[in-house]
Amino acid sequence: MEVIERRHGAGGRLMEEFLRKYLFPELPDDEEGVGIKDADDSAAIGDTAFTIDGYTVHPYIFPGGDIGKLAISGTINDLLALGAIPQALLIGMIIEEGFPIDDIRRIAKSLGSTARESNVRIKGGDTKVVPKGQVDKIFITSSGIGYRDPRLDENFKQVGRNFKWLLDSNIRPGDKIILTGYIGDHGISLISARGDLNFEIDVKSDVAPLIDVYNAALEVGGIVSIKDPTRGGLAEALNEWSIKSGYGIEISEEAIPIRESVMSACEFLGLDPLELGNEGKFIIAVHKDYAEDVLQAIRKTRNGKYAEIIGEVTDKHKFVVMKTTIGGKRIVDRPTGDPLPRIC
Amino acid sequence: MEVIERRHGAGGRLMEEFLRKYLFPELPDDEEGVGIKDADDSAAIGDTAFTIDGYTVHPYIFPGGDIGKLAISGTINDLLALGAIPQALLIGMIIEEGFPIDDIRRIAKSLGSTARESNVRIKGGDTKVVPKGQVDKIFITSSGIGYRDPRLDENFKQVGRNFKWLLDSNIRPGDKIILTGYIGDHGISLISARGDLNFEIDVKSDVAPLIDVYNAALEVGGIVSIKDPTRGGLAEALNEWSIKSGYGIEISEEAIPIRESVMSACEFLGLDPLELGNEGKFIIAVHKDYAEDVLQAIRKTRNGKYAEIIGEVTDKHKFVVMKTTIGGKRIVDRPTGDPLPRIC
Repeated sequence: MEVIERRHGAGGRLMEEFLRKYLFPELPDDEEGVGIKDADDSAAIGDTAFTIDGYTVHPYIFPGGDIGKLAISGTINDLLALGAIPQALLIGMIIEEGFPIDDIRRIAKSLGSTARESNVRIKGGDTKVVPKGQVDKIFITSSGIGYRDPRLDENFKQVGRNFKWLLDSNIRPGDKIILTGYIGDHGISLISARGDLNFEIDVKSDVAPLIDVYNAALEVGGIVSIKDPTRGGLAEALNEWSIKSGYGIEISEEAIPIRESVMSACEFLGLDPLELGNEGKFIIAVHKDYAEDVLQAIRKTRNGKYAEIIGEVTDKHKFVVMKTTIGGKRIVDRPTGDPLPRIC
Repeated sequence: MEVIERRHGAGGRLMEEFLRKYLFPELPDDEEGVGIKDADDSAAIGDTAFTIDGYTVHPYIFPGGDIGKLAISGTINDLLALGAIPQALLIGMIIEEGFPIDDIRRIAKSLGSTARESNVRIKGGDTKVVPKGQVDKIFITSSGIGYRDPRLDENFKQVGRNFKWLLDSNIRPGDKIILTGYIGDHGISLISARGDLNFEIDVKSDVAPLIDVYNAALEVGGIVSIKDPTRGGLAEALNEWSIKSGYGIEISEEAIPIRESVMSACEFLGLDPLELGNEGKFIIAVHKDYAEDVLQAIRKTRNGKYAEIIGEVTDKHKFVVMKTTIGGKRIVDRPTGDPLPRIC
């Protein structure tokens, strides 16, 4: 009997193959707006964008946040990544019988304060409690809707391309790629919280709603596309840009912001930091004439202080290629599986 | 240590108390549109309605449907119940490692065909696979958005009241209450599928998207409010109307459509059929001048053939009171817990 494997849900190539093979043929045609076949961060009809994401993070409270902050941040960032201003959120919780009330209060506080911080309302929800042993403590699925940012009209004029949303397929040769800060913090902080490291490490998850970074970028303009490199990390996100646009991407390893402690932990665990999920980072493709100004504006925000230009789009090939610190070049593949299950 | 109990997620009074105590104080203020404090079937801002619901039904394939049909039907019905025409759906799946691929295909087919049947698109989704033992097979959370039905303007003129949506609080003394068919089929079919009955019973779940019933009602007009009596059943839904409007409701036991086999099963199990969840029924409050015409129109639809007028709204008291078949009267209370966990 063929069964679902863990890697089918890992946000990489296998998940996409699985969806194409089993789900798409059964779904109604989807020709208008942004839909399931675009597989972007959010979907859209007319000027309304909407998104859904499930969160199964283990442990549900971790250094730097909890499942509540993660769910709200992830949903807000998915809407922003399409160019939509988040308006309202809905929260579906599935809770195991016996779950501590104090932890629910903490998660509720977190849901509320993270939404408030981004000026987004939580408009409704659903709670299911299932018997002991039928879910591992708490899973949250959140959904959000947003309206198209009116600044996109002027923005795409600056870019000189006739787009409606900040889609993955928008990137073109010459566009610069900004990464808004350190990668890998979220993944490594979770491994550490699970007790899977033999040494002490002082890294917190980067989980955050990125309204400040988004607004700083759009105020300058010239923005081509935005993605949040969550599951599958930078490697997956860059490859999605490349595949959907048909162009290659060249990045420089030296330019990628990564903490020494995260790098050491990755070496110890045999993990590629490019494949680790992030929960408070964007990669932003910017028209080259605006890249430096956008970078400086982002660096003035709380969540974008360590932003860097890490590379650019090219028509010389159709891959993601990284110039390594030792002077070589390597192809950055899509992650096939999930190096760390349940990090989001 | 205080912990979450199964009854906290049961869709009745305890769940509401739990939400009011622990969640509401932490959430951003919610003054515009229809929101979490209204606790209606969907939320709304401007002319856009949206809803989220988690589905943990066990078994995930049951007589008359599966978790895919249930998720799409439930989301569509929640939007219709507010007076919104469903536009697009998003599906979040959390799947246990080792889940059979054939069952995913069946569920995908079900998601697709149920959406297509109601002319609604599935625009996106999210899939997480978790290690064995961390979720019981498959949970689905679905979210939907819809636009306000333009027929509501004329409809509320017919009612003679200045409302925007088909809210629970809309009902007034004299309004007639239509139940669109047999109650209890879904709950009993699941108990039977679980092997918890000692006898054979030929009852299928009523799970269905109720576009036909909704359209038939709105075409006639005079509609005051619509609810879908899912978790907590008819007892919970009628009490929500009563509490939110401040009026009483009188129903007649004799008028309530219920199959003999479902009644026998309830008697055998000691369950109150009024508290059983339904997944293909509406209760509809209609201005008395339109009630008979709405009833006849609904009876012409596939999902509303067995509709009946079961009672009316009153200002003589503030309870839900049922005239029993033996001539007495009893108060119908809100269910406190969940007579059947994981039926939806």
